[in-house]
Amino acid sequence: MNFNFDKDNEEIVLRAEEFFATEMLPRHREWVETVCHDRKPPLFIKDIQEKAKGLGLWNLALPELAKDEPGTRLSNLAFAPIAEILGRLPWGSMAFNCHAPEVPNMAMLQALATPDQKEKWLNPLLNAETRSSFAMTEPDVASSDATNIRTRIEVDGDELVLNGRKWFATGGAHPECSFLIVMGVTDPEAGRTAQHSMVIVPIGTPGLTLVRELRFMGWADFVAPIGEFRLENVRVPATNLLGVRGQGFKGAQVRLGPARIHHAMRCIGMAEMVLAQMVARAHERKTFGRSIVEYDTVQKWIAEARIDIDLNRLFIQKAAWMLDNSPDKNTWRVVSQVKVSTPRMLQKVTDRAVQLFGAMGGTDDTLIHHAHTYARWFRIGDGPDEVHLRQIFKTEPVPEWTIADCPYIAPPGF
Amino acid sequence: MNFNFDKDNEEIVLRAEEFFATEMLPRHREWVETVCHDRKPPLFIKDIQEKAKGLGLWNLALPELAKDEPGTRLSNLAFAPIAEILGRLPWGSMAFNCHAPEVPNMAMLQALATPDQKEKWLNPLLNAETRSSFAMTEPDVASSDATNIRTRIEVDGDELVLNGRKWFATGGAHPECSFLIVMGVTDPEAGRTAQHSMVIVPIGTPGLTLVRELRFMGWADFVAPIGEFRLENVRVPATNLLGVRGQGFKGAQVRLGPARIHHAMRCIGMAEMVLAQMVARAHERKTFGRSIVEYDTVQKWIAEARIDIDLNRLFIQKAAWMLDNSPDKNTWRVVSQVKVSTPRMLQKVTDRAVQLFGAMGGTDDTLIHHAHTYARWFRIGDGPDEVHLRQIFKTEPVPEWTIADCPYIAPPGF
Amino acid sequence: MNFNFDKDNEEIVLRAEEFFATEMLPRHREWVETVCHDRKPPLFIKDIQEKAKGLGLWNLALPELAKDEPGTRLSNLAFAPIAEILGRLPWGSMAFNCHAPEVPNMAMLQALATPDQKEKWLNPLLNAETRSSFAMTEPDVASSDATNIRTRIEVDGDELVLNGRKWFATGGAHPECSFLIVMGVTDPEAGRTAQHSMVIVPIGTPGLTLVRELRFMGWADFVAPIGEFRLENVRVPATNLLGVRGQGFKGAQVRLGPARIHHAMRCIGMAEMVLAQMVARAHERKTFGRSIVEYDTVQKWIAEARIDIDLNRLFIQKAAWMLDNSPDKNTWRVVSQVKVSTPRMLQKVTDRAVQLFGAMGGTDDTLIHHAHTYARWFRIGDGPDEVHLRQIFKTEPVPEWTIADCPYIAPPGF
Amino acid sequence: MNFNFDKDNEEIVLRAEEFFATEMLPRHREWVETVCHDRKPPLFIKDIQEKAKGLGLWNLALPELAKDEPGTRLSNLAFAPIAEILGRLPWGSMAFNCHAPEVPNMAMLQALATPDQKEKWLNPLLNAETRSSFAMTEPDVASSDATNIRTRIEVDGDELVLNGRKWFATGGAHPECSFLIVMGVTDPEAGRTAQHSMVIVPIGTPGLTLVRELRFMGWADFVAPIGEFRLENVRVPATNLLGVRGQGFKGAQVRLGPARIHHAMRCIGMAEMVLAQMVARAHERKTFGRSIVEYDTVQKWIAEARIDIDLNRLFIQKAAWMLDNSPDKNTWRVVSQVKVSTPRMLQKVTDRAVQLFGAMGGTDDTLIHHAHTYARWFRIGDGPDEVHLRQIFKTEPVPEWTIADCPYIAPPGF
Repeated sequence: MNFNFDKDNEEIVLRAEEFFATEMLPRHREWVETVCHDRKPPLFIKDIQEKAKGLGLWNLALPELAKDEPGTRLSNLAFAPIAEILGRLPWGSMAFNCHAPEVPNMAMLQALATPDQKEKWLNPLLNAETRSSFAMTEPDVASSDATNIRTRIEVDGDELVLNGRKWFATGGAHPECSFLIVMGVTDPEAGRTAQHSMVIVPIGTPGLTLVRELRFMGWADFVAPIGEFRLENVRVPATNLLGVRGQGFKGAQVRLGPARIHHAMRCIGMAEMVLAQMVARAHERKTFGRSIVEYDTVQKWIAEARIDIDLNRLFIQKAAWMLDNSPDKNTWRVVSQVKVSTPRMLQKVTDRAVQLFGAMGGTDDTLIHHAHTYARWFRIGDGPDEVHLRQIFKTEPVPEWTIADCPYIAPPGF
Repeated sequence: MNFNFDKDNEEIVLRAEEFFATEMLPRHREWVETVCHDRKPPLFIKDIQEKAKGLGLWNLALPELAKDEPGTRLSNLAFAPIAEILGRLPWGSMAFNCHAPEVPNMAMLQALATPDQKEKWLNPLLNAETRSSFAMTEPDVASSDATNIRTRIEVDGDELVLNGRKWFATGGAHPECSFLIVMGVTDPEAGRTAQHSMVIVPIGTPGLTLVRELRFMGWADFVAPIGEFRLENVRVPATNLLGVRGQGFKGAQVRLGPARIHHAMRCIGMAEMVLAQMVARAHERKTFGRSIVEYDTVQKWIAEARIDIDLNRLFIQKAAWMLDNSPDKNTWRVVSQVKVSTPRMLQKVTDRAVQLFGAMGGTDDTLIHHAHTYARWFRIGDGPDEVHLRQIFKTEPVPEWTIADCPYIAPPGF
Repeated sequence: MNFNFDKDNEEIVLRAEEFFATEMLPRHREWVETVCHDRKPPLFIKDIQEKAKGLGLWNLALPELAKDEPGTRLSNLAFAPIAEILGRLPWGSMAFNCHAPEVPNMAMLQALATPDQKEKWLNPLLNAETRSSFAMTEPDVASSDATNIRTRIEVDGDELVLNGRKWFATGGAHPECSFLIVMGVTDPEAGRTAQHSMVIVPIGTPGLTLVRELRFMGWADFVAPIGEFRLENVRVPATNLLGVRGQGFKGAQVRLGPARIHHAMRCIGMAEMVLAQMVARAHERKTFGRSIVEYDTVQKWIAEARIDIDLNRLFIQKAAWMLDNSPDKNTWRVVSQVKVSTPRMLQKVTDRAVQLFGAMGGTDDTLIHHAHTYARWFRIGDGPDEVHLRQIFKTEPVPEWTIADCPYIAPPGF
Repeated sequence: MNFNFDKDNEEIVLRAEEFFATEMLPRHREWVETVCHDRKPPLFIKDIQEKAKGLGLWNLALPELAKDEPGTRLSNLAFAPIAEILGRLPWGSMAFNCHAPEVPNMAMLQALATPDQKEKWLNPLLNAETRSSFAMTEPDVASSDATNIRTRIEVDGDELVLNGRKWFATGGAHPECSFLIVMGVTDPEAGRTAQHSMVIVPIGTPGLTLVRELRFMGWADFVAPIGEFRLENVRVPATNLLGVRGQGFKGAQVRLGPARIHHAMRCIGMAEMVLAQMVARAHERKTFGRSIVEYDTVQKWIAEARIDIDLNRLFIQKAAWMLDNSPDKNTWRVVSQVKVSTPRMLQKVTDRAVQLFGAMGGTDDTLIHHAHTYARWFRIGDGPDEVHLRQIFKTEPVPEWTIADCPYIAPPGF
């Protein structure tokens, strides 16, 4: 094992950190006021994106970025510290066009789209000129087992006809969202993992209805607002098929590794942001004649947060490095480990932050509720913990010895 | 120890259960649609209240209810199972006029108000003709130590002049709220616990501004919406002083015992409601070829919820019985034990419910988010756990022996 | 629900408490020295038993005690506080002949033995003139599923021939143990739960070998030392069959309810004993210039122990009361709840006690290691938690509604 | 951050792994029989040590090993995987002379001893010709605050006179132990951290009495048996002072970094060893008609163990690398993080192993009790978790902003 950050990387991290400090963080309150309170689009995001692009801080989360595509190609490991910086703010990743669901959608289009599809759907995303959404989860089935998905996609001449319901289509309720990538059944007679295909469905196609915007644990994500959709005889050209028919699941895999790792990196950023506030608050507040920070319960919360953050950050870096170097079965196990471990850490940190902040910690004045919700969501998003734990379990080798002949076990008279 | 539910009580519990089943639960979806989605007042609440009153299901949570006051006087223990029934719905307790903050406010007025004050402020509450709020917490200080409270109340002739900021005034943002009971400093030179007094401040008094409605962990409580207030030279008659000047804290104690117990009882109702949904969901859903309920992880979640619910329910009953029979120091300890234990239980149950329900469990379609937030709030509301744990610790007797002469410790050669 | 301790019971509890304080606790150090260090039998136990018997403090744990049997019949609920007192010392229950495995063995003999068997095996136990052991668990199979048991019992004329291995036969390694009650297969062709029978096997029968004494997590139980046995063509008269052939499991059920409840009650006694030492220690020790008790982490450990102890004690009382009044399916569920909840509590308390005591808490000078081991054992003894959790789960009713028509769930446009 | 294992290191790890597999593991049962059951010294250890030395597998845990000292110098990072291999067996580290307390004692002698002292005390240790013990902890004071230590060391001419009590002197009860390094007060009038000095006290010095051998949570460590000592007017030459007078604490620091890291590495080895047995057992056993491994609770235990082990291993490697490269304040923080995190992991893994193994898991047939005890001890040994958490807390920087001007906090109308 040997992972390191070279000099080049140090430079871009510093550049990102400075950009964050000077161009982004000072505008957070404006963002909250515009977006959260007034529920209007934050006009300054476009400005920030323009500046970031000019500084080479663009599309940093796409290791497969082609030479003729805009942005700077970084490895997953190199992107890790930047994802963490951006993760401190709910809207941070948008500044460098490194946010979900755009990044995994772009990665998928890079891998699967035809030249025409790239021209039409990928390029605008690479330039942040539009938004997109991935519509997989369905309200009627347990989507933790993706083969449960039931939306039907039928071929009718040179058209595809879609019928079904989708929800938790992240970003699908964004006013600028222009298309969905819909997973559905094209081949119901095929084997369990060969039935599904992906289709690009433009917003505005007749029969496609945004039923409502969803909240998760009270958090309405203004960055990638969650949509519930109804698809009733939605017709698109057959050329809107993305990737190989019946290979939908395989195709969608490309989303998952980096997506999970990026979420995890952002969790680290959130945890650091919350921890800093815990420390500040603990030093400021007084109860019963002494500063809160003098209570060793509070000291312990802070120290345990530090331990959990540092262990998880390092492990995420390792996972990123493995994704960069050998995206094999062993790497998937490590990604699953990250997926289970990191949100637990963030949920624990934020739960204690609420306890430390009291009522204020539950308001939307702080980002604690946001971070808590992100953590809670991540424990079920991209596959619930239970599924990842089962995957991890399955990779655990069975020893060659049985208990009876295990050399570590020594009954008397053996 | 000897607590029992007699026959009379059985009857009223059955009556409440039937009323809930026939008059309340069927209207929950209407309530959600009217209140949560359309953000309009639910007109049917008044009808339900009228019916409940007619059936003697009224003001059941006031053990000190006088003979000439409307409603049925029940002991805390007798009220426990009814509080649990009502707790299943966010708005349930309103049906019998047993909701917070009205109940603790009424209890306080019963104990402290002058006849004139009772006439003017208590009676309308007893008849659910108005709403009220208790304004104690302040944004600028750690309110877990109530002596930190800084709002100033100055005497100016026969008027009181209030200046300060209050937030987390539950119910204060309700459109029908007609007065606040404000805790503030009248005697800054007095001893640490003799500085504060309570004053009744009618909504509409010049200088009193509702700054905003607050959410907690994303939950906007449509039942008792939380207000943040600014008080700038707010003048009320000196007769609006509630209780004895400088005895504000002592006076407010009357709120706390029953309030905490009622919250805890409601938590049991919520936990049962969520658990039933977990069981139903687990039997319905299938992943990877088998019903979710066949996973023993899920079985364990359900069984552990059952254990935690039953232990807490029984202990709450004991606390209620003690409050009824001997509200002494020992009883306060038991109330604190309930206060710490029960929300932890509910938070654990609801966290697992989210995991079991997946994305749906985080939406507002279910009441899981509501229950989770209630639990999370209760861990800091009415005194954070840490303060209650310290109180419990302080009541723990120090043994007469030292470690050196402890008869249970036997070093060799003793 | 209505459980109370009447005056009679108060008196016997006081008598037991006084006996404990004057006759037992002062001899604990002697017991440790004699038994633990010198590994000799504690001669004073017989004296204490004689005195206790004279004071009517005898066989208090046998609710089915017949009129002509020695001792005082108490209900499970009435015995609870006494079991707790005795539980403070590892050998405490022996003083009143209320210890395991004798109590469940006596209960089983009361229920199943023939008059001759009672004369020969039960009476000496009732008078503490001998010791016994129940041999069920086997090293070669997972005994959490009792139907795995493989020891063979074959009928050969008017003799029974036993072959097999048994371990964790509690008390079987005691020098005064005179017989085992062995569970084995008599009817391998019968249904899964109708294959097993119980047989009384006297120590000394040819072919029966005590292989070794076992420790559990380093604890060698000097009160009921654990035996591992080999049975090779062990022959006993057919009259040694205990109960009905093929009904071994059903017969053994009689052991389980009270046994688990008694263990749980003892756990409460141990937890109180350890907690008192934690409090004493915390007040005595100083680090970094202040008394340990001033650290709120320590205060929290103490307070949380108090909460957990009190919740569990109350719930155990309820379980005892239910066993006394209606030993039905619902009662078994409650016993399982106790079985899961109480040892978790004790393990948590003792783990924190070690942390508070430091190195000393791990030595055998204190009883912390004993209590910790008892808790740890109880989580697998008498059925592992996982089996009890499954039983609890199975009793959870499935709601009549589905998620789709659940009245608590309100999707938009319902 | 950039840590890697180079080729040289790979080779020695493979050599160690092979030596473990062929020369060590096959003799474990012999070791158990000889040492644990018969309580005799394991003669083969000397043979193994001789072979290991011949293969260059000697003194690998001493980064400061001088050129003329026997063995192979490895960095802390390079030693990590070898410590893990050896940690699988309680006696494993002895094979390469890499066990506690010898390693930290040797490191301390390397740093502080005079040439004469090295000749007399260090060289025999480097060649495994004798054993030693570090006597710091005292029964009468809270040693988590080392300044509490009270053993007096007085100068009398050219002799030092020691009086006091020491316990938990690891290895002090080993029959081959030839000297203690005793920490005591030489300068009671000096500042709080300048009062203590260390003195070498040979076993056999008049006045030095081994009071008893101690067990911890039932584990009698046959590798480095724990001694309790009484020192009554123990006289040694003044030349036995180790290091600078009054600088005892500072001198002893040298023990701590590597000692803690080595313990942590061994914990990883133990956890892997236990996990492998859990996996084997889960595949073998059947209950209620299915293999235990089919229960997802068991799968989850295994997967969570894998996550916790891998996160901790990686973080330990980082800590080792930091110790090698920059043993500054930041590194100490990381060592403290390891010290808190790793034993928690091992305790959790072993607790679940007991649950999975049932009764057998608590016997001394497996090494689960050993591993559990090691974890439990490590949570208080080398400083209790609470002290390390406080140290970690203290290094956490306070943000420059206050909560009021925190850029991440956005109240309305800001």
